[in-house]
Amino acid sequence: MASRNIVVAQSGGPSPVINSSLCGVVETFRALGGFGTIYAGYHGIEGILQEELLDLSAQPAEEISLLRTTPAAGAIGTCRYKLRDDAHEDYERIIEVFKAHNVGYFLYNGGNDSMDTAHKVAKLAAERGLDLVAVGIPKTIDNDVGDSEFRLIDHTPGYGSVARYWAYMVLGAEEENRGSSPSDPVLVMQAMGRRIGFIPAAARLADPQREMPLLIFLAESGITLPEVADRVNDMVRTRGRALVVVSEGLKLGDIGETRDAFGHTQFSASETTVAQILVNYLNRVGLAARGSARQNVAGTHQRHDMIHASTVDIAEAYAVGQQAALLAAQGESGYMATILREPGPIYRVRYDKVPLEQ
Amino acid sequence: MASRNIVVAQSGGPSPVINSSLCGVVETFRALGGFGTIYAGYHGIEGILQEELLDLSAQPAEEISLLRTTPAAGAIGTCRYKLRDDAHEDYERIIEVFKAHNVGYFLYNGGNDSMDTAHKVAKLAAERGLDLVAVGIPKTIDNDVGDSEFRLIDHTPGYGSVARYWAYMVLGAEEENRGSSPSDPVLVMQAMGRRIGFIPAAARLADPQREMPLLIFLAESGITLPEVADRVNDMVRTRGRALVVVSEGLKLGDIGETRDAFGHTQFSASETTVAQILVNYLNRVGLAARGSARQNVAGTHQRHDMIHASTVDIAEAYAVGQQAALLAAQGESGYMATILREPGPIYRVRYDKVPLEQ
Repeated sequence: MASRNIVVAQSGGPSPVINSSLCGVVETFRALGGFGTIYAGYHGIEGILQEELLDLSAQPAEEISLLRTTPAAGAIGTCRYKLRDDAHEDYERIIEVFKAHNVGYFLYNGGNDSMDTAHKVAKLAAERGLDLVAVGIPKTIDNDVGDSEFRLIDHTPGYGSVARYWAYMVLGAEEENRGSSPSDPVLVMQAMGRRIGFIPAAARLADPQREMPLLIFLAESGITLPEVADRVNDMVRTRGRALVVVSEGLKLGDIGETRDAFGHTQFSASETTVAQILVNYLNRVGLAARGSARQNVAGTHQRHDMIHASTVDIAEAYAVGQQAALLAAQGESGYMATILREPGPIYRVRYDKVPLEQ
Repeated sequence: MASRNIVVAQSGGPSPVINSSLCGVVETFRALGGFGTIYAGYHGIEGILQEELLDLSAQPAEEISLLRTTPAAGAIGTCRYKLRDDAHEDYERIIEVFKAHNVGYFLYNGGNDSMDTAHKVAKLAAERGLDLVAVGIPKTIDNDVGDSEFRLIDHTPGYGSVARYWAYMVLGAEEENRGSSPSDPVLVMQAMGRRIGFIPAAARLADPQREMPLLIFLAESGITLPEVADRVNDMVRTRGRALVVVSEGLKLGDIGETRDAFGHTQFSASETTVAQILVNYLNRVGLAARGSARQNVAGTHQRHDMIHASTVDIAEAYAVGQQAALLAAQGESGYMATILREPGPIYRVRYDKVPLEQ
């Protein structure tokens, strides 16, 4: 079995550290030795279906090493292709490609949908008599993988860097808004995370003592447009200005949603944005100060900007890729590598595994 | 005259390095010695009119030194207040405040409008018998101060940092778009600069060899929405995807403009954006590939983000503030400190002066 080949692939949205996990996978298999060729499925499961396999083993060590600090997913690509449950054609095709290329190890990096894919591939491989070790690598800037008590995973690689982006975004926005508030008293900033508030919540990292005129409206809040406007104008009345962070998925009106293959709303492709709806409403009803409300909609920049990436996140993404490779090398199929928090006041993590079906 | 006081103030949009110029002004006057108190007009000319003067001389050297890397204009504020030409009330009030506080030096940091203000204040002071030295400090991320042949000034502090933001933005966007193009083949990014294309043009710094599927549409191009869509789809046909940078002031349709006190459009406060108009049009007429067009509208982030600031820009902003202080100390009233490029292939600049009335 030692000479069987490896396929690693990615799915879902890029992150600043997704390639660091890939680097961890490749460098770990190389260090262990005794494995066959390391292939990447180009653009995730789509590349596997089309037999587009990149030979990562042919890359010099320096190129692989550079992946650690290469943002987003340009090197091996990602996809939002949903495998069909009914026809099983896609799954049969994956097994066929894996058999043709003597693949014994499948590592899939992504969020919940990707873990589901890895789990289904592992099950079908077992049914078809293919000796395949399938391991998941967690990734999502939204931080919505696992359970609500953080027992399966404490946090996902990618989130830390986007959180850092937001901490710095708000620190700069505070200086901007303090400076230009006589003409622009309100600055609205829209955060990614669909309908999950971890990313906008990270804006609070810029102001743990709550000294800034900072308002954060999470998608989960259920607040209405007039209520948001009231809260903003209350802040403008007391502090003269306001920084406002909104979830891209906050329901303040019809944004003309565009959906991806999974049926998830693609907020940065919608006909308008939550931030725009709020800015227009504020400027129409009027602010409690002279001047206008402005907006920043960073979109994918928050997940493709390397300069804001967290060094801790880069290191953890690498280690979780390494952990996935170690699990695979030990034949531990059907697991996702995980990051768990050690108890106590000092930040420390350990890397473990959870069954993919969870 | 040596014991007369100084007023320094700012106007217009913040930049990542505007405080570095302020730092240069204060540290130079402190180093020269023999001057009175260094005041800042809080929120520019508005603070002077309201006699809101901050005592910068009371600040410890460390605090002043930190200004060098503090982005945007939160420390002493800025404004978009247009001095009234007709009534002369505002000008008389400025002279009154300057006389009351024994002000002999006025340094004003800003763009064209600010240089005009400094010039008018200097003229009126002379008429009113106030011995006032007025010096301008150039600043604008848009890079639109001076003449079209760059004889008055080669470039303005602030532009270099925003250009660097765009170079890195596009480098990351290329990795993002390469990775996620199966679902999002087109990424539209909107750049500041009103109707002047220096900022979007800086996106080319990410790809000097023209290897990326990068299209840049400057406000000056006069191109129409269907023409832009054709160019984008031609790129999608040949390369499978496209990165599109548009000026905030590109005329692709009615954005519902909001205007500031100078009559300038405030693009980030408009009812919609150029990027949104383009994304909606592309998604409506359809792309020459599966998937949707997405958008990033960074807004003020590009001018308040310190982490992307150029170290050359920080140093030049400091030096031009220093130059303004030196001009003022030598009694050279009615000039703007300027940055001129030395001839030859190696990048070098020198600091000089140009009359404010130009």
